[in-house]
Amino acid sequence: MHFASDNAGPAHPQIIDALAKANDGYAMGYGADPIMTRVQTQLRAVFEAPEAEVFLVATGTTANSLALATLTQPWQTIFCSPTAHIHEDECNAPEFYTGGAKLTLVGRDDKMTADSLRTTILAEESRGVHGPQRGPVSITQVTERGQIYTLDELSALTATAHEFGLKSHLDGARFANALVALGCSPAEMTWKLGIDAVSFGGTKNGCLGVEAVVFFDPGHAWEFELRRKRGGHLFSKHRYLSAQMSAYLDADLWLDNARCANMACARLAAGVRDLPGVSIDFEPQANLIFAHLPRAMHQRLHAGGAVYYRLAGDLDNGDPDEPLPCRLVTDWSVTDARIDQFIALARG
Amino acid sequence: MHFASDNAGPAHPQIIDALAKANDGYAMGYGADPIMTRVQTQLRAVFEAPEAEVFLVATGTTANSLALATLTQPWQTIFCSPTAHIHEDECNAPEFYTGGAKLTLVGRDDKMTADSLRTTILAEESRGVHGPQRGPVSITQVTERGQIYTLDELSALTATAHEFGLKSHLDGARFANALVALGCSPAEMTWKLGIDAVSFGGTKNGCLGVEAVVFFDPGHAWEFELRRKRGGHLFSKHRYLSAQMSAYLDADLWLDNARCANMACARLAAGVRDLPGVSIDFEPQANLIFAHLPRAMHQRLHAGGAVYYRLAGDLDNGDPDEPLPCRLVTDWSVTDARIDQFIALARG
Amino acid sequence: MHFASDNAGPAHPQIIDALAKANDGYAMGYGADPIMTRVQTQLRAVFEAPEAEVFLVATGTTANSLALATLTQPWQTIFCSPTAHIHEDECNAPEFYTGGAKLTLVGRDDKMTADSLRTTILAEESRGVHGPQRGPVSITQVTERGQIYTLDELSALTATAHEFGLKSHLDGARFANALVALGCSPAEMTWKLGIDAVSFGGTKNGCLGVEAVVFFDPGHAWEFELRRKRGGHLFSKHRYLSAQMSAYLDADLWLDNARCANMACARLAAGVRDLPGVSIDFEPQANLIFAHLPRAMHQRLHAGGAVYYRLAGDLDNGDPDEPLPCRLVTDWSVTDARIDQFIALARG
Amino acid sequence: MHFASDNAGPAHPQIIDALAKANDGYAMGYGADPIMTRVQTQLRAVFEAPEAEVFLVATGTTANSLALATLTQPWQTIFCSPTAHIHEDECNAPEFYTGGAKLTLVGRDDKMTADSLRTTILAEESRGVHGPQRGPVSITQVTERGQIYTLDELSALTATAHEFGLKSHLDGARFANALVALGCSPAEMTWKLGIDAVSFGGTKNGCLGVEAVVFFDPGHAWEFELRRKRGGHLFSKHRYLSAQMSAYLDADLWLDNARCANMACARLAAGVRDLPGVSIDFEPQANLIFAHLPRAMHQRLHAGGAVYYRLAGDLDNGDPDEPLPCRLVTDWSVTDARIDQFIALARG
Repeated sequence: MHFASDNAGPAHPQIIDALAKANDGYAMGYGADPIMTRVQTQLRAVFEAPEAEVFLVATGTTANSLALATLTQPWQTIFCSPTAHIHEDECNAPEFYTGGAKLTLVGRDDKMTADSLRTTILAEESRGVHGPQRGPVSITQVTERGQIYTLDELSALTATAHEFGLKSHLDGARFANALVALGCSPAEMTWKLGIDAVSFGGTKNGCLGVEAVVFFDPGHAWEFELRRKRGGHLFSKHRYLSAQMSAYLDADLWLDNARCANMACARLAAGVRDLPGVSIDFEPQANLIFAHLPRAMHQRLHAGGAVYYRLAGDLDNGDPDEPLPCRLVTDWSVTDARIDQFIALARG
Repeated sequence: MHFASDNAGPAHPQIIDALAKANDGYAMGYGADPIMTRVQTQLRAVFEAPEAEVFLVATGTTANSLALATLTQPWQTIFCSPTAHIHEDECNAPEFYTGGAKLTLVGRDDKMTADSLRTTILAEESRGVHGPQRGPVSITQVTERGQIYTLDELSALTATAHEFGLKSHLDGARFANALVALGCSPAEMTWKLGIDAVSFGGTKNGCLGVEAVVFFDPGHAWEFELRRKRGGHLFSKHRYLSAQMSAYLDADLWLDNARCANMACARLAAGVRDLPGVSIDFEPQANLIFAHLPRAMHQRLHAGGAVYYRLAGDLDNGDPDEPLPCRLVTDWSVTDARIDQFIALARG
Repeated sequence: MHFASDNAGPAHPQIIDALAKANDGYAMGYGADPIMTRVQTQLRAVFEAPEAEVFLVATGTTANSLALATLTQPWQTIFCSPTAHIHEDECNAPEFYTGGAKLTLVGRDDKMTADSLRTTILAEESRGVHGPQRGPVSITQVTERGQIYTLDELSALTATAHEFGLKSHLDGARFANALVALGCSPAEMTWKLGIDAVSFGGTKNGCLGVEAVVFFDPGHAWEFELRRKRGGHLFSKHRYLSAQMSAYLDADLWLDNARCANMACARLAAGVRDLPGVSIDFEPQANLIFAHLPRAMHQRLHAGGAVYYRLAGDLDNGDPDEPLPCRLVTDWSVTDARIDQFIALARG
Repeated sequence: MHFASDNAGPAHPQIIDALAKANDGYAMGYGADPIMTRVQTQLRAVFEAPEAEVFLVATGTTANSLALATLTQPWQTIFCSPTAHIHEDECNAPEFYTGGAKLTLVGRDDKMTADSLRTTILAEESRGVHGPQRGPVSITQVTERGQIYTLDELSALTATAHEFGLKSHLDGARFANALVALGCSPAEMTWKLGIDAVSFGGTKNGCLGVEAVVFFDPGHAWEFELRRKRGGHLFSKHRYLSAQMSAYLDADLWLDNARCANMACARLAAGVRDLPGVSIDFEPQANLIFAHLPRAMHQRLHAGGAVYYRLAGDLDNGDPDEPLPCRLVTDWSVTDARIDQFIALARG
């Protein structure tokens, strides 16, 4: 009953097998391994983008920070949601990698809207050399609260960015979870809408630690390579990143894993919704649930060995009926039995 | 016949096995996995340093840059060899991570001496607020040219650093290769000489990609953690770094691997030395050979499928007897048969 | 009729005279001039802080950025008002000088309150190594909208900062304007409330270009000196900064200038308030007025040669009665006649 | 008898007068003052470069750092002399402003040669993404040891830079001193040789504190403006920078001042050369003398009130005949009488 994070579960066995298989003989380092050539072909096919340049790094913070640094000047500001990972959970990594750019928060909600984005961009306008200059828009899909932008919503955001000549970046740490939920193609969710760069996550969806950065304009490639190197993110034994990503893309493993995680989430959400005294904060659309559970229910779950993040409130003191917020995350590996066990335990 | 780099060979099977074994069930991320607790215990025991704080990262550039950034202020300069990896091969990563510190080159040789270090430190002295301020000394052991500092040489360097109140860092990307060559203990090669921080390499010596950073003064720990996070180097699925390092340290695998690599190098060096028209540039002491081979010999090796880095000169034009420089590196996995095959091919 | 900014007017003749007088013979550079010794004595007396360390720079952005960089780590966030100069008008200078720290906006109003500050600090709390760490609080006095914090309000803010162990900085680009309005002493407005560092403005109040940075804890001095030097802000011919500041402090010129500016503002505000169709946005407390004037009135003022910043709206199109926002700033040099001329012109 | 630095003397009275004259009425800030329009016209005429973009800052370190940051990417290295001000005397300001670029020292002498530059550029070549990338060449004219590059020498350097596609920057803190010594035009010493950006010094040559940065390609202008602003170097009361520079250029004051300084240096050098036991280290070509004087002579000068920098050696102990190095600098204001007095005192 472990719902702490989609980075807490095991890697998919096919990924481990791919690592073992890649561990044969010699391979040139630093991205010159033959498996990386295959990854490039795979990702270009996945994105229907034969010109795209793709790079592998090991963490999502790295993918976001390096991609944004390539799109941003130090005197610009990046537009993003107040709940964006780049704002809340990267300990100023974007500020560091961009050389001191700013992040400007759009609206007060988890999801940006074209209106809130336009209003914010317009407000960042009139100060000439004095204020931050407008930089790219970064969109998180799936959002950090488990919401998914529809293609129309995404399109409205990128159209707004383009209206002001701004580039756009998609933080796709949970790219696959969004894709299978929307039932669209990767191209439809990205460059066909005008997205310039994508952080394409693998780590949270069954890999050990690998993310691809995809630039649809190959003109960004060499700068990205230099930024990756000087950030310490260029792996000498790069084949072990390549092997993960290649296996992840093979035979739609990435989509299957995401479907498993999303379906598990739907089952868990259905169970949670029926619990007495419980409220769901956002309608779960991918693999994350934000809910309020009564304190006594948390106590029961905790005592029974369930693992997940509570977001506020003292477990040991106060009204047993007081609702306290928590986050539940499902990954590819969770079983129906575990979900049912969790619900039964919660019910008491 | 692959002698391009010690990052070109496979990982040791025990490391792969450890990954597979670690891939079981759920584990908290970001360094809170139980295997990391074991790694800490192991490394403290290896270094006989129960107070040491240890951290894992995936690349050597990261280990060096983060360790140095923790020891260096942006207005200081780091003293290092002109051949140091931090100077030549990290695309300004130390400058980036320190926020713009400088590197001051000590002497003109691969190895620094206490004299050249003192002369250089003294020269960086007299300008008050105008010049860079003196920062830490970074020592590469094994050097990038395959040389090993004796304990006396190291001791003279760290004594010189201390004379000026400077801290010292050991770039031990090939820590194990040096250790088995010197036949000393990790403590004797580090904190007993006054080394403050160590980049303890695993990647080049049989791992997939893992390096430990060891601080003997635990006061550096929290700053390092924040620097690691904002650099994007904190792994969410950290257990796969832990598993590598733990298996690497188990049953002296790290020392065995280094002994294999060093012995292979000795065999290869002996063979190379006997070749006609060949000169060895440095007396090989670890697992690297720098030699000049006649152009015709390079041609023969190249045609026969040998892989290694040539360092200058056109293979296709010019005097067949002209000596052209190259680097040959042995890793833990190279076999005597391959070495002998290489020598035979070179001999023609 | 020039109300564009308090940096648009002339320097006070006594400041010019002091420059000319300082231009005699030789003086050591880089802050070692004898006039700087006098400035230090003067500022320590002004602040009743015999241990304080004081430094001169030429611009307010520099004073703020260097002071904050000395108080802030790159992984921290600075708490400030959404209208703070450091946020809106310094083109990411604080992010640049701190090496990539973040600015977290407190509340939605021009003035922070202890409550909004506490709420914001608490929200920046629970993410361990993942989120930005809490850094200093920066308070702008006079605010960018012309408001003045009372001593009680300031005290509540610094008490909140201390509650969380945070340092505090006062952006006093208009320090003197606030001081004479409050009728308190510099010590009462700063270190007696727990302020750690002050940007003490001279430029907007009759100097050519000089600001002092005052640290009440002298332990910050050497780091600040190095940061000033590497930022290019250490003047070789430093005596010309010293001479300005010394003359500014002599015989209360700084207070007299501020009183002139504030009184001019009061007269102007009284006149504006009586104009038909006009509304005042904030109650003017120092030397800035934010008001809405009918479009036709703007047209008349513009045609008549009045100079000031309009903040939005098209002058040439639309309803002549539509109120359009503007900012009016008075400096030490403005005369009653010019103010009355402006009001008469506005009235039409 | 003050020969410590060309920043120790007074500003020229015409510069002070210009400040006083500029202090009249209102002027828009931040470079929008009418005097700046005049400065632009003047500098374009001086350089015969009608397209050039010119900017004013207050210090030489700022001019160099901002100009170089505009020409350099963070992953590049700047080629310069080991005695360059940007290397020795700016406390890592270029590293700071470039976001962590490196400085690569060319040769071991004060003056770079085309050969030493080519050798150094070639050595910084073969590491692909691993090593620093080649960035601009920065040439100091007059050098920090008082040498002047001939036009042929400069041309050879810029030709070498162009051979590798690199840009070049001229650190002209003593631009005028070089120009009058060479007897050429500003265009001949800069863009006609392929120089891309110039730090055009005023501070050391009779101003209070002003330097121009000149870009011959106007495409750099906006980036430079943003870098200047976020560095805190954009003056609100910019007219006082403009007034200095305008007066400096008026009626060839800048050339006259430089001629005075150079002639004073020649007179001083002639006198020094004739002193017993004295050696001149470099043939003085501008306004700097590096010489060795016997200890007893230093003692006599010191006791007699002469002020200058000694570069090593204990004044109070040792052989009275031991030659100890020193630097003597003449500025525009030094009189023949003072020089003769110095020589007489030295002679004893």
